[in-house]
Amino acid sequence: MTINLEYPLTSRNLRPNGTVVDIGRVKVGITELVVMAGPCSVESAEQILRIAREIKVAGATILRGGAFKPRTSPYDFQGLGKTGLEYLRAASCDTGLRIITEVIDPRDVELVAKYADCLQIGSRNMQNYPLLSEVGRSSKPVLLKRGLSATYKEFLLAAEYIMVEGNEQVILCERGIRGLSNELRFTLDLSVVPYLKEKTHLPVIVDPSHGTGNARLVPAMSRAAIACGADGIIVETHYSPKDSISDAIQTISTAELAQLIKELEAVAKAVGQRIPLPLVK
Amino acid sequence: MTINLEYPLTSRNLRPNGTVVDIGRVKVGITELVVMAGPCSVESAEQILRIAREIKVAGATILRGGAFKPRTSPYDFQGLGKTGLEYLRAASCDTGLRIITEVIDPRDVELVAKYADCLQIGSRNMQNYPLLSEVGRSSKPVLLKRGLSATYKEFLLAAEYIMVEGNEQVILCERGIRGLSNELRFTLDLSVVPYLKEKTHLPVIVDPSHGTGNARLVPAMSRAAIACGADGIIVETHYSPKDSISDAIQTISTAELAQLIKELEAVAKAVGQRIPLPLVK
Amino acid sequence: MTINLEYPLTSRNLRPNGTVVDIGRVKVGITELVVMAGPCSVESAEQILRIAREIKVAGATILRGGAFKPRTSPYDFQGLGKTGLEYLRAASCDTGLRIITEVIDPRDVELVAKYADCLQIGSRNMQNYPLLSEVGRSSKPVLLKRGLSATYKEFLLAAEYIMVEGNEQVILCERGIRGLSNELRFTLDLSVVPYLKEKTHLPVIVDPSHGTGNARLVPAMSRAAIACGADGIIVETHYSPKDSISDAIQTISTAELAQLIKELEAVAKAVGQRIPLPLVK
Amino acid sequence: MTINLEYPLTSRNLRPNGTVVDIGRVKVGITELVVMAGPCSVESAEQILRIAREIKVAGATILRGGAFKPRTSPYDFQGLGKTGLEYLRAASCDTGLRIITEVIDPRDVELVAKYADCLQIGSRNMQNYPLLSEVGRSSKPVLLKRGLSATYKEFLLAAEYIMVEGNEQVILCERGIRGLSNELRFTLDLSVVPYLKEKTHLPVIVDPSHGTGNARLVPAMSRAAIACGADGIIVETHYSPKDSISDAIQTISTAELAQLIKELEAVAKAVGQRIPLPLVK
Repeated sequence: MTINLEYPLTSRNLRPNGTVVDIGRVKVGITELVVMAGPCSVESAEQILRIAREIKVAGATILRGGAFKPRTSPYDFQGLGKTGLEYLRAASCDTGLRIITEVIDPRDVELVAKYADCLQIGSRNMQNYPLLSEVGRSSKPVLLKRGLSATYKEFLLAAEYIMVEGNEQVILCERGIRGLSNELRFTLDLSVVPYLKEKTHLPVIVDPSHGTGNARLVPAMSRAAIACGADGIIVETHYSPKDSISDAIQTISTAELAQLIKELEAVAKAVGQRIPLPLVK
Repeated sequence: MTINLEYPLTSRNLRPNGTVVDIGRVKVGITELVVMAGPCSVESAEQILRIAREIKVAGATILRGGAFKPRTSPYDFQGLGKTGLEYLRAASCDTGLRIITEVIDPRDVELVAKYADCLQIGSRNMQNYPLLSEVGRSSKPVLLKRGLSATYKEFLLAAEYIMVEGNEQVILCERGIRGLSNELRFTLDLSVVPYLKEKTHLPVIVDPSHGTGNARLVPAMSRAAIACGADGIIVETHYSPKDSISDAIQTISTAELAQLIKELEAVAKAVGQRIPLPLVK
Repeated sequence: MTINLEYPLTSRNLRPNGTVVDIGRVKVGITELVVMAGPCSVESAEQILRIAREIKVAGATILRGGAFKPRTSPYDFQGLGKTGLEYLRAASCDTGLRIITEVIDPRDVELVAKYADCLQIGSRNMQNYPLLSEVGRSSKPVLLKRGLSATYKEFLLAAEYIMVEGNEQVILCERGIRGLSNELRFTLDLSVVPYLKEKTHLPVIVDPSHGTGNARLVPAMSRAAIACGADGIIVETHYSPKDSISDAIQTISTAELAQLIKELEAVAKAVGQRIPLPLVK
Repeated sequence: MTINLEYPLTSRNLRPNGTVVDIGRVKVGITELVVMAGPCSVESAEQILRIAREIKVAGATILRGGAFKPRTSPYDFQGLGKTGLEYLRAASCDTGLRIITEVIDPRDVELVAKYADCLQIGSRNMQNYPLLSEVGRSSKPVLLKRGLSATYKEFLLAAEYIMVEGNEQVILCERGIRGLSNELRFTLDLSVVPYLKEKTHLPVIVDPSHGTGNARLVPAMSRAAIACGADGIIVETHYSPKDSISDAIQTISTAELAQLIKELEAVAKAVGQRIPLPLVK
């Protein structure tokens, strides 16, 4: 094996069979597909608990929800912060679902890691190097979202920033890029999936919610993601999307999620992967 | 039914079940998938005949090949012209495959329509309105490729230019857009597939060869195209890709095509579509 | 001098001092600046005559106006055609201004060349090769607008398509590219000006009207164009912009044009160029 | 005056005449132009001192130089850190030039503010909200660079994040966006200058070095920036560009800077602005 000098830690030739990231015994990578679902923002203990229970029934294994929200405007709802983390943890205790939530400040990594099973780095922070280094020193797995105009090289080098600190549990996530002045909010760049699969041993998942900005396109693009080799999806889900404080237009219902997971099982089978059953609590 | 004033002819509400375009009895649209395959350029009678025979065995039903080539540089090979059309027709007579080939000059539409079963409008000409009008007056079906930076609206309105002249046999084709300065030649924008499926009754296919510019990504992106609802693919194929005069790097072999069609059959079945067997001669 | 094999006709080393294109004795290139102004569309004999007279007073020397309009929708006004050309010619006879107008069909080149002093190839047709070849066989100068997502290389090679047919009177025009989903219609890419000036001997002008899509930004971006070395501007102008049939939002008034030309004279002087006085009739 | 609810602090109607930001008595905004110059990275005490002395002679008033470098790869030179800050301060003591340098970690704001006269937020951090908030609590002025694919709205809202914490000394900086797959590293979007000037009272400057990635284009694009209303430029400068550790290809020499400032004076005069003489020590 030769060392890839540009990508010494992410290069596929280090682990030709790929890496499995372990999120509290939920496996991401290789032959199992992961479905992460939940609301854009944690809004209340009741909201997140009800969503958690419904996505578990639908077949998801990881609960997503924002407690620290990076919002374009300082005047928009910024999330419930630590309280939101507590609500997420309570929902996890109730359902057995694992928790993924975003961290946006290097000073909060320790706090968020106490509550979350997986730390999310959002698109705006893909090149926030002090934050990448800090999560690189955490013992929790990291989901790294691609920046809005990041090249594939920049994406992989951002993962190197995390891994060089010792944390090798990194999942890459395509979430749409900014391209053409277009009818959709972003351009979901699925070619990144087979491209990265060839370059790196890390798992790659897809966020069709931000990637299209349109709930009606989420099922089709989720199927496409699995068909081209993604290891799973992360999808904004709510029992009543129209009542979401944020991202309502791109959020699917928990009923739609259940239907979607059935479709994904069929596609996964067609391409030789499977979706695992939810873990027992 | 209300008339959509912006899209009076392409709007889905005109034909909620979708349109089937008939290319010499090969059906495109609704539940059948079409595979169009062949070289970038027709290079010789032998080359196109051998490719035709091999893609037929692989399971394709339509033979693509450029006789009039729109090349970025005037100093590059511009195609064999009328001779290329004759070679295509001979290959069709031998195999029963239908022929699709590009027309780039409104003065050549009649000539090309004599030889081709389907006329292709390339990306550079998506807003070449005299050419659109001229193929709109032809009796042959038209494959309309999306422009390199065309919005969805511009794409649909280009189809209206064809249809308003009386030709309703139009197939839309996503082939990658120019976005981000990136590692790939283009960004394949698959979200256009479910988006257009909702807006228009016309069939939508995908060109993963130009859409990625990379033969190694073609199988994965073809599977993704079918999984998100495309009615087929058009894929650059050669018995020996490295010997192609043009587009060698994005051309798959006929052996890879055979394998790909098997994979597409599995994905198609998973999403409720099927690939028809090749027509008898 | 070595021949540049990629750009044998446009390469700067062929004519290190640059080329002057002669539009009916109005010079474009090297030390004189050209101001082309006029409406998006020729709407009536009165409209174009009044605009011609007013832009002449303002200091412009070339009258622009569309007779054959490439419109995104087939249901929008497509221009007055040959009648529009006659109105333009009449306005030229009255004022002595030279005429530039777009040609979109290779079959119309001869007709348009009878009326126009300069043929315009629009952005949508930058890679319409039969059209480029046809204007390449015309004796009239050609203004070639950059395609919406054309690279610099593609832009220069489109000029080669014209020049290889024998017509060396080509002016390049930056008019904004499609980039970022943004608040403006297009992104005016002024870096193309000094870039092209180094690569090619052809004159380069800028269209700040399409390039910004916003009349309020036209003066500032016109000044910037001249400051970075452009040989002139082409600007949509109307005595009453709000009454334009098309492009009203990006059209400046003839009064604003007069003020703008004064500003451009100051900038031109600061960078060592000058705006010539209008030709006598 | 009505409050602009979307932009309560940045909106132009708050201060129709514009804001002057004071960087240690160097004024930025309204009628004076600022030239910030210096190397990409502070490499040694001698390097930064020599550059400082030479740019002062050339006419610049603010010294730029990176001590904390946000590099795409973790394996590239990351800057000298605190030592770099000390070298910058020493160069300032020697020359009287004011210092601007980037801060990339909210935990470093206090440290950097001790040494710098102006804090720079780089493109990668335009939406790093904890960092924006932290510099918003600093007493030092802030230069906010536009993100690589930020819309104008996102850019202004990032400034709101700083100002809402109490720091109203914000300068906006265009530095090129990622657009088209192109021959240049970035697309310098100068239209943002007159656009922002209309929307906000904050000063707007331009970085032609990153904006083009090409030293040969820096003079022309600097002139264009001033011609369309920018309040100044920030330009990578070195006595020997080819010896820079980073960004050598886009760095101009101190001799070229002297020539450039002369050209800018002429353009500034043509558009009614002036470049102030360097402050006495």
